[in-house]
Amino acid sequence: MPTEQTMRQAMQAYIDLFNVSDSAGIAELYAEDATVEDPVGTELKAGKPAIAAFYKMAVATGAKLKLAAPIRASHGNSAAMAFEVELNMPEGRAVIRVIDVMTFNDAGKFTSMRAYWGKEDMVVLS
Amino acid sequence: MPTEQTMRQAMQAYIDLFNVSDSAGIAELYAEDATVEDPVGTELKAGKPAIAAFYKMAVATGAKLKLAAPIRASHGNSAAMAFEVELNMPEGRAVIRVIDVMTFNDAGKFTSMRAYWGKEDMVVLS
Repeated sequence: MPTEQTMRQAMQAYIDLFNVSDSAGIAELYAEDATVEDPVGTELKAGKPAIAAFYKMAVATGAKLKLAAPIRASHGNSAAMAFEVELNMPEGRAVIRVIDVMTFNDAGKFTSMRAYWGKEDMVVLS
Repeated sequence: MPTEQTMRQAMQAYIDLFNVSDSAGIAELYAEDATVEDPVGTELKAGKPAIAAFYKMAVATGAKLKLAAPIRASHGNSAAMAFEVELNMPEGRAVIRVIDVMTFNDAGKFTSMRAYWGKEDMVVLS
């Protein structure tokens, strides 16, 4: 089981890699057979190729991620973090308020990511 | 499926009821066959009597909950919130940084709660 510190570092790396648009680097944080459910309640992206394609598209939007509170890491093989996605929309500058939950394998790679956010978590700022 | 607003209101009620030490009120937010895993990686408390007993003990500590960021509610039947537990420990005033994830039934009751926090999320302030 990965340590809390290992999980926290992987979560922070996710934020940092996203913010330099390194989608391949983000994909490397995932296990081969990992799944992504973003937002929760929508179809899973399964496997590294699908996940890499998802992040390639996501970073291309120019969105940036900003932690809203320190990363949490559980006693189990899970960690969670609250953050804001800052992005430009046709309506103006906007944020989406998200909480991501990741599970980990023993090697410290993400085996799943679930993103909790809904329509009402999207706020146009200007 | 409950609306985002219904889920957000139940999450806020959880915080508010905790902060007035109304453990019975918190238990009423749960479905009869709900489960609580706090922290994630430990044994489940299953069913309303076990859950009510857990919160009776929790509010008796005098701990208070404070949201760290706005509550998130997903497109699915789930919501998540980052908060701090403020409590007095033998070592002094402390906070535990937690993210709770709840799932809901159609009636808007919690069917599960999972609390993401670990040893390193506990910080002694003084």
